[in-house]
Amino acid sequence: MKFIIQRDQLIDSVQDVMKAISSRTAIPILTGMKIEAKQHGITLTGSDSDISIESYIPAEENGIVNVEEIEEGSIVLQAKYFPDIVRKLPEKTVEIVADENLKVTIRSGKAEFNLNGQDAEEYPHLPKLQTDDSFEIPTDILKSLIKQTVFAVSTMETRPILTGVNISLEDGKLTFTATDSHRLAAREVPVNTSNVKFSSIVVPGKSLNELNKILDDTEETVEISVTSNQILFRTKHLNFLSRILDGNYPETSRLIPEQSKTVLHVKTKELISSIDRASLLAREERNNVVRLSTKENNEVEITSNSPEVGRVSEELTVKSIDGEELKISFSSKYMLDALKVMDVEEVKIDFTGAMRPFIIRPENDHSILQLILPVRTY
Amino acid sequence: MKFIIQRDQLIDSVQDVMKAISSRTAIPILTGMKIEAKQHGITLTGSDSDISIESYIPAEENGIVNVEEIEEGSIVLQAKYFPDIVRKLPEKTVEIVADENLKVTIRSGKAEFNLNGQDAEEYPHLPKLQTDDSFEIPTDILKSLIKQTVFAVSTMETRPILTGVNISLEDGKLTFTATDSHRLAAREVPVNTSNVKFSSIVVPGKSLNELNKILDDTEETVEISVTSNQILFRTKHLNFLSRILDGNYPETSRLIPEQSKTVLHVKTKELISSIDRASLLAREERNNVVRLSTKENNEVEITSNSPEVGRVSEELTVKSIDGEELKISFSSKYMLDALKVMDVEEVKIDFTGAMRPFIIRPENDHSILQLILPVRTY
Repeated sequence: MKFIIQRDQLIDSVQDVMKAISSRTAIPILTGMKIEAKQHGITLTGSDSDISIESYIPAEENGIVNVEEIEEGSIVLQAKYFPDIVRKLPEKTVEIVADENLKVTIRSGKAEFNLNGQDAEEYPHLPKLQTDDSFEIPTDILKSLIKQTVFAVSTMETRPILTGVNISLEDGKLTFTATDSHRLAAREVPVNTSNVKFSSIVVPGKSLNELNKILDDTEETVEISVTSNQILFRTKHLNFLSRILDGNYPETSRLIPEQSKTVLHVKTKELISSIDRASLLAREERNNVVRLSTKENNEVEITSNSPEVGRVSEELTVKSIDGEELKISFSSKYMLDALKVMDVEEVKIDFTGAMRPFIIRPENDHSILQLILPVRTY
Repeated sequence: MKFIIQRDQLIDSVQDVMKAISSRTAIPILTGMKIEAKQHGITLTGSDSDISIESYIPAEENGIVNVEEIEEGSIVLQAKYFPDIVRKLPEKTVEIVADENLKVTIRSGKAEFNLNGQDAEEYPHLPKLQTDDSFEIPTDILKSLIKQTVFAVSTMETRPILTGVNISLEDGKLTFTATDSHRLAAREVPVNTSNVKFSSIVVPGKSLNELNKILDDTEETVEISVTSNQILFRTKHLNFLSRILDGNYPETSRLIPEQSKTVLHVKTKELISSIDRASLLAREERNNVVRLSTKENNEVEITSNSPEVGRVSEELTVKSIDGEELKISFSSKYMLDALKVMDVEEVKIDFTGAMRPFIIRPENDHSILQLILPVRTY
């Protein structure tokens, strides 16, 4: 194998692929990165067996030459050193050569690295997904679906299925749902597809977080294909493959209250700042509980009490309060997580009493929903 | 105690003072920050008993009012919460009130924090240093003295005296010297003082690191006063007090070779890049040893070998090589640390054979010196 490649192109691809590579894996060769050279371009592959990422650098694209002097072949390189080496090379181009004894030479300017490679034949074959029943959505929409839900997955392994995001595609609507049983985040978007539908596949939150980091915030589309145990996200130069979690995702729709007794309209940023301040004293106790009480004149009081340290209270003028008086306590962390992904100037909060879950939504928009269970404080 | 203060001024002062406060101290009240209000201004104090920092905010300065409605008094507040509270307050001004029951109220806009304070009488009194025999140097010069030496202090507690920087003021020259016995860094500057001199006081590296973080890179002067067990750095609004280490600092001048057998002139940046690359493969082994060999035609070869991973080699064209041929091995970390603080485009390296310490200096400038002991590799 041999090729000469633009260093900056290589750095970007290596960075993406590294997201799938873990130094703690049961399969030693997966600590390495596979490099495959074909006449049409170079493919880098990384995998931790949960996530696999392939990044493709075409030899030529839009009249620009990325890779030259290609002799086909493949090799696996230790991923621990390769990214730093590439990043610190002195010149703009890099020559990478692997000989039949798996000796790899990386050359740039007058610097030369001689590394021991591993046989690419020993690298596991990634499953080829059939892409007949795939659908497409813009990358920026996919990223917001992930950002607005994935933070609510469970981090506890006691119910593994809750560590994933539940994804459905039905009636032309793509829905992401995540819950750790104390809160729930859901978002749906319309998707233009006639033939594809699936009702509930659960993708590990970790996979979606990594995917979100790799994808650029563009309007280019991502192609998504689903099989019984894998999901593939494909862009022009990237294949991102994740396993799907086994098990049944709980029915969540019945958690969502249908009426409300107290309705608040409030500026998102102002509420974030108030809750943030109120949570300062409660950092280590009882999951940062803060309390919200409605007052006269469109004011709510936000308070928090930490016997040893002190007390914080703040009056916040909201746009409107309708319905019953309310005193409710909740985790400030859950509240802040939910508010921070709302992306609207003003939110509507529907409460159904101090002991029932409440819902945060933009006014007149049911495509996103954040639900939080209150905390019993007395 | 009561006052109303500009939030941003308070944030800056709190940040400085926090550098002296540790949550792990044997004296519980030192986990707090002392606040003292006088008619002329507010003083914040933090201390971990090694370092003490006082930051002063004058009530009025250059016609700008920083503090208003001052009622004199003092209180100690838990430092764990105070900085975050101040930083996240909603308005530009803050009112701080302490009552006779040590209850503290922090008010800004509609937000109010009620905290439990502690009696300022219980806070240890900082020693008042006599400032008769003080001298002054510009802040930026002091910062470069620290930066160019402090990295070379020992991090091992086996010889505590080496964890400090040795400071002397003699014959109008202020000298900083640090060594961990494998390398040595020294820098001297002329100081305009007639009456002050001291021969060897050793200030903890940690103190100097914190001081360097707090001081702005200005040409305003720092006043330095030394007693038998403390050193005080004083700027307009800051008192920084550090203890001095007990013990005798080793005589280091005899370590410095007087002749050299091989002299290299080389561009600092190019040498840094080469050494940096050569160290990539050796990260965990034998202190990142790299090897430098002189070649024909003003070239040196820099190599590193890591049997399991591979080998790196690079030819570097230097400006000149004079004297004997040389093959020498050294810690890439020590070399990079030294080169990175040199602040000159080109350095001169004086070698005295493969087994003797070598010296890095700017050409024709003896005010800074970096010495490194080689590593025996065969």
